[in-house]
Amino acid sequence: MDFDPTIHPHRRHNPLTGEHVLVSPHRNKRPWQGQTEQPQSTDLLQYDPNCYLCPGNARAGGHQNEAYEHTMVFVNDFAAVLPSPGPAAPPEPHHLLKAEPVQGGCDVIIFHPRHDWTLAQLPIPDIEHVIEQWCAVYTKRGAEDGIKYVQIFENKGSLMGCSNPHPHGQVWSLSEIPSEPAKEIESQSRYASRTDLPRSDAPKGPGGRPNLILEYAYFEVSLPRDEGRVVLKNEHWVAVVPWWAVWPYEILLTPYHRHIPSILHLTREEKGAFAAILSQLARRYDNLFSCSFAYSMGIHQLPTPTAPADADGEYSDIHLHLHFYPPLLRSASVRKFLVGFEMLAEPQRDLTPEQAAAKLRACDEVHYLDRPS
Amino acid sequence: MDFDPTIHPHRRHNPLTGEHVLVSPHRNKRPWQGQTEQPQSTDLLQYDPNCYLCPGNARAGGHQNEAYEHTMVFVNDFAAVLPSPGPAAPPEPHHLLKAEPVQGGCDVIIFHPRHDWTLAQLPIPDIEHVIEQWCAVYTKRGAEDGIKYVQIFENKGSLMGCSNPHPHGQVWSLSEIPSEPAKEIESQSRYASRTDLPRSDAPKGPGGRPNLILEYAYFEVSLPRDEGRVVLKNEHWVAVVPWWAVWPYEILLTPYHRHIPSILHLTREEKGAFAAILSQLARRYDNLFSCSFAYSMGIHQLPTPTAPADADGEYSDIHLHLHFYPPLLRSASVRKFLVGFEMLAEPQRDLTPEQAAAKLRACDEVHYLDRPS
Ligand SMILES: O=P(O)(O)O[C@H]1O[C@H](CO)[C@@H](O)[C@H](O)[C@H]1O
Ligand SMILES: O=P(O)(O)O[C@H]1O[C@H](CO)[C@@H](O)[C@H](O)[C@H]1O
Repeated sequence: MDFDPTIHPHRRHNPLTGEHVLVSPHRNKRPWQGQTEQPQSTDLLQYDPNCYLCPGNARAGGHQNEAYEHTMVFVNDFAAVLPSPGPAAPPEPHHLLKAEPVQGGCDVIIFHPRHDWTLAQLPIPDIEHVIEQWCAVYTKRGAEDGIKYVQIFENKGSLMGCSNPHPHGQVWSLSEIPSEPAKEIESQSRYASRTDLPRSDAPKGPGGRPNLILEYAYFEVSLPRDEGRVVLKNEHWVAVVPWWAVWPYEILLTPYHRHIPSILHLTREEKGAFAAILSQLARRYDNLFSCSFAYSMGIHQLPTPTAPADADGEYSDIHLHLHFYPPLLRSASVRKFLVGFEMLAEPQRDLTPEQAAAKLRACDEVHYLDRPS
Repeated sequence: MDFDPTIHPHRRHNPLTGEHVLVSPHRNKRPWQGQTEQPQSTDLLQYDPNCYLCPGNARAGGHQNEAYEHTMVFVNDFAAVLPSPGPAAPPEPHHLLKAEPVQGGCDVIIFHPRHDWTLAQLPIPDIEHVIEQWCAVYTKRGAEDGIKYVQIFENKGSLMGCSNPHPHGQVWSLSEIPSEPAKEIESQSRYASRTDLPRSDAPKGPGGRPNLILEYAYFEVSLPRDEGRVVLKNEHWVAVVPWWAVWPYEILLTPYHRHIPSILHLTREEKGAFAAILSQLARRYDNLFSCSFAYSMGIHQLPTPTAPADADGEYSDIHLHLHFYPPLLRSASVRKFLVGFEMLAEPQRDLTPEQAAAKLRACDEVHYLDRPS
C-alpha cells in the first residue's frame, strides 16, 4: 500500500519556526459532543450608538471619536506596553529567573465607519485605506525611540477574544523582538546562507540569495491548481494553506514575484492586488461555513522600517507575509481545540492542508449574504 | 523609581523551552465586554445512563464498559495515531516539504466510576489508583515496538475541548518525540552540562550534574512563603506558578527532594504525596472562582520507561514534572484569550505569576461545594 496523506497519520515540518504538526486526517469524522460556539450575529446596525468605535461616539477613556470617513487610529486605553522607558530591572534573584523591562505602545486601527462590515464587505478602495493606515502606523511607531518591533494584527470574532464586531485591528510596538518573529527571522537568514540547495527558478532575495518564503510560494504556484495548496492568487500575491498549517484553515498570504521586505516596499499596483486578495480571501472564509469567519491574522515583515536590511544586514532576508489563524474546524459552531496533547506535546490537525485548500477553493467568491435567495 | 513587576511591563524567559512571555500586570483591570464562558454544570448525576464512560454503558464503537470499580482503560475510538506501521513516506516533493509517517496508539483512562466527580472530589486512595493506571499504561505502551514517546494528559472542562465531564484523561503514544518535550529535553541536557553555574545546595541529577527543574524548585521552596511563587508543598512535591507562566494560573508540579526520571521511579510514599497534592491543588483551583476549574494538564518525564537514561544517556537529565494550563483569568466566565499578538508574536499575560500564586495560596482547601452554607 502506498503512503496516502489523507489516510496515514504523519508529521510535517514547519521550516519557518522549526516546529512540527501531527496530521491525523481520518480524525475529522469523529462525532462532536463537546462545546459549540455561538456564531457571530450578522444583523448588526450600520451605526451602533453603544459602540465605542463608531464615528462620533465616546470611548472608554472619555475621548470622543472623530466623525472619521475612512480609518481612525487611537492609542489603546488598556495598552499591554507603555511608552515610558521604565526603570531598569533589578539584579536577577536567581540565574534561572530572567526578566527585562519592555516599553512600547499599543494602537487600535478602526478599518471603516460601518459597524456591520468586515474585510469581506469592505469595497476594495476602503481596504486600500486600511493598508495605507497600516503603513502609516508602522512608519510612525517604527521611528520611535527604542522601538525594535511593530506587530500589526487583527483578532476577528468573539471566538478570538475580540470584544467588538466593529471592524478594527491592532498594532503593538515593542522594545524587543518577540519570540515568534525572532524564530522566523533566524530561519530565513539561515536558509539564505545555505549553499546545498537544488537549483531553482524562484525569485531570489538580496545578493541573489535563496529566500525561504519566495522559494516555497514559487513551488506552490508552479503546481497544477488541483495538486497543491494554493487557494487564491493574482498577479502579485498568493494565498496558500501551508504544508505545515496547524489551524484547520490556516493561510499564508505573500507576494511571490519579487523580494519585498515590508508593506512600505509595495508598489501602488502591488498594494491594489493586496487589497483585492484580502477581500477575496475574507469572502471565501465567510462562505466556507456561511458565517462571519473568526480568525487572528497578522503581518510579518521587517521588524521596523529602519531595521538594518541593506544587502547583508541582519534582517535582509525577511520576506513580507501574513498569517491567518482561524479556529473553526467543521461548521460555524464547531472549532478545533488545541489543548492537552497540543499544549504538552505538539499541535495536531484533523484534515490535511490539501483537503482544506480544496474546500476553500470550492467556495464561491460572492458573499453568502449577497446571494439572491 | 524602582522597577516594580506589578506595575512595569516586562518579559520573562522560560529556561525549559527558551520562549518568552510578556507580562502586562496593569492590564487585568480593563473591563471585559467580550465572549463569556458557560461554567461547567455542577449538578451532574452520580451515574448517567447516557454517558459512554459510566460503568456498564455502551461506547461509540459498540463496546460495553465493564462494571469497573476504580479506573478503566480503553483504546480511543477516534485515535489520532494508529498502530499499523504504515507505508514509508514518498520522496519529498520539494526540499521545504518534509513529512514522516507516525505510528502509535491513543488510550482513554477513566479515573473513577462516579460521573459527577473530578480529581477535586476523588478520595486520595482513588487518586492513587489513577496514578497506578498512569504507571501501567506508560509501562505497556512504552514497551511497544517503535514507540518513542508516551504523553499522559487530561483535558478538563468543555472550555478545554473536553466533551464529557466524566473524570478521564488520555495517553497518546508515538513513534516520534514531539516538539514540546524535545525542547525541554534539550534544555535540561544543556543545563546539566553547564560548568559556569554558581554553587548551590539543590539536589543534583545523575553524575552530580546540576538539574534545571530541581534547581528551580529548590530555589522556590527556599524563599519565604510570601515572596515566591509556591502555592502548595508537602514532604516530596511542590506546586509553583512558574516565573515564566503563560496561562494566568499555570502550575508546575514536581518532586523536589531528589532526581526522579519518571512516575515509575516514585517510592510508595512519594506516590502517596503525589496523590495528596493533586487533590489539594484541584480543590484550590475549584475554589478560586467557585467553579469546576478547566485546564489541560500533562506529565513530562522520561519519553518511555526504556529510553536510555543511565548515567550519561541521552535522557538522563530529565526530571519528572507536570504542567497545568488553565484558561480562566478573572472569574468562572472570563478566560484569557491567547490570540492575535500571542499567536503572531509572543504570549502575553495580565497578572504576575507572584500575584497568581498569592491568590491560589489564599484559597481554602475545603471544596466550595462541601462548605456548610
Ligand atoms: O480526544 P478528544 O478529547 O475528543 O479531543 C480533544 O483533545 C485532543 C488532544 O488534546 C485535541 O486534539 C482535540 O482537539 C480536543 O477536542
Ligand atoms: O486588546 P484586546 O482586543 O482587548 O484583547 C485581545 O487581544 C489581545 C492581543 O492578542 C490578547 O492579549 C487578549 O487576551 C485578547 O482578549
